[in-house]
Amino acid sequence: MPKQVDHRERRETIARALWRVAEQRGIAQASVREVAQEAGISHGAVQHYFATREEMLAFAMDFASEQTSLRVAEGVRELGNPPHPRDMLRVMLTEMLPLHPDARATSRMSAAYVLEALHSANIHTRARDGLTHGRDLIKQIVRQAITDGHISPDRDPATETNLLLTLTGLTPLIELGVIEPQEALTAVDQHLNQLFANKT
Amino acid sequence: MPKQVDHRERRETIARALWRVAEQRGIAQASVREVAQEAGISHGAVQHYFATREEMLAFAMDFASEQTSLRVAEGVRELGNPPHPRDMLRVMLTEMLPLHPDARATSRMSAAYVLEALHSANIHTRARDGLTHGRDLIKQIVRQAITDGHISPDRDPATETNLLLTLTGLTPLIELGVIEPQEALTAVDQHLNQLFANKT
Repeated sequence: MPKQVDHRERRETIARALWRVAEQRGIAQASVREVAQEAGISHGAVQHYFATREEMLAFAMDFASEQTSLRVAEGVRELGNPPHPRDMLRVMLTEMLPLHPDARATSRMSAAYVLEALHSANIHTRARDGLTHGRDLIKQIVRQAITDGHISPDRDPATETNLLLTLTGLTPLIELGVIEPQEALTAVDQHLNQLFANKT
Repeated sequence: MPKQVDHRERRETIARALWRVAEQRGIAQASVREVAQEAGISHGAVQHYFATREEMLAFAMDFASEQTSLRVAEGVRELGNPPHPRDMLRVMLTEMLPLHPDARATSRMSAAYVLEALHSANIHTRARDGLTHGRDLIKQIVRQAITDGHISPDRDPATETNLLLTLTGLTPLIELGVIEPQEALTAVDQHLNQLFANKT
């Protein structure tokens, strides 16, 4: 196996171990030492890949975002060609919710990362840039959907994008068992119906 | 001063110290020892009020919910009599967003508590009950607003309540500086406008 691939695989193994520690015991417990133990790798080997805990966290978050993007891309491929913007948004938004194990792992990593960002300037910048990037992607779809007549032109793309992103606010309701996954999907669909149907 | 009041005051002082530790360094750092130091009280004195860290966390969360309720009640008192359900919901939802220092402290406590709930069965139950209670209050307002003809009867109260609660999903966007507070308020107003105006 080429060395480059091996390097990448090792980093991903460590990132997944970090997700598990964060999921089971909280991100504060995700020290280099704990993550190494969870990954079944020596402390020194983890330090070889990540010089600091912050670097390790940043990679684990980037990897979570990548995995979410891959799941979204896969979901979008299964849609019609070209996909309807409503369906694309539905795939993007539901993959951000903790509705299956992979999505739960990336969702929890993401929630923990936001809290870490509140007391680390570096993480704050990275988390802000990541969220801004995701917001731009959604805004582009909303804007195009307005141009193509799927969404009423009297809707403001920025505000509607912010409201679509708030659907991730279903996460605590799902995680705490206040609502069932099906109720979360119904809420997403109701929001999308309102956005796409009311061309007043 | 009656002993009962003094006891309550001491617990609130400790709860506020815990909020500060959670806000500045993360809730995982909020051990009895750290909170005692932040509160300027001896470790033993904190243990006199709270036998365990979990008890201390639970009280700090209950106190955050109470403080939020007080701010909401104050906001609602400033509305017309009887207040319009749209305005009541606006007060409730905006006080859950980190738009001023008191709301930021309670919002961060709440976000951290949800993450703690993922790896503590006791906290999970308490957090679920608290969120269920808040959801019931909002659902009651939505239901009444439908009865009174403010919201279209073809809206489902449970789904609309879930969507109103998701507006707390604006929190990461505000905390990370992705959107300005004014954009968050615009999003809340746009959501309420859609809910109250579209009586198709």
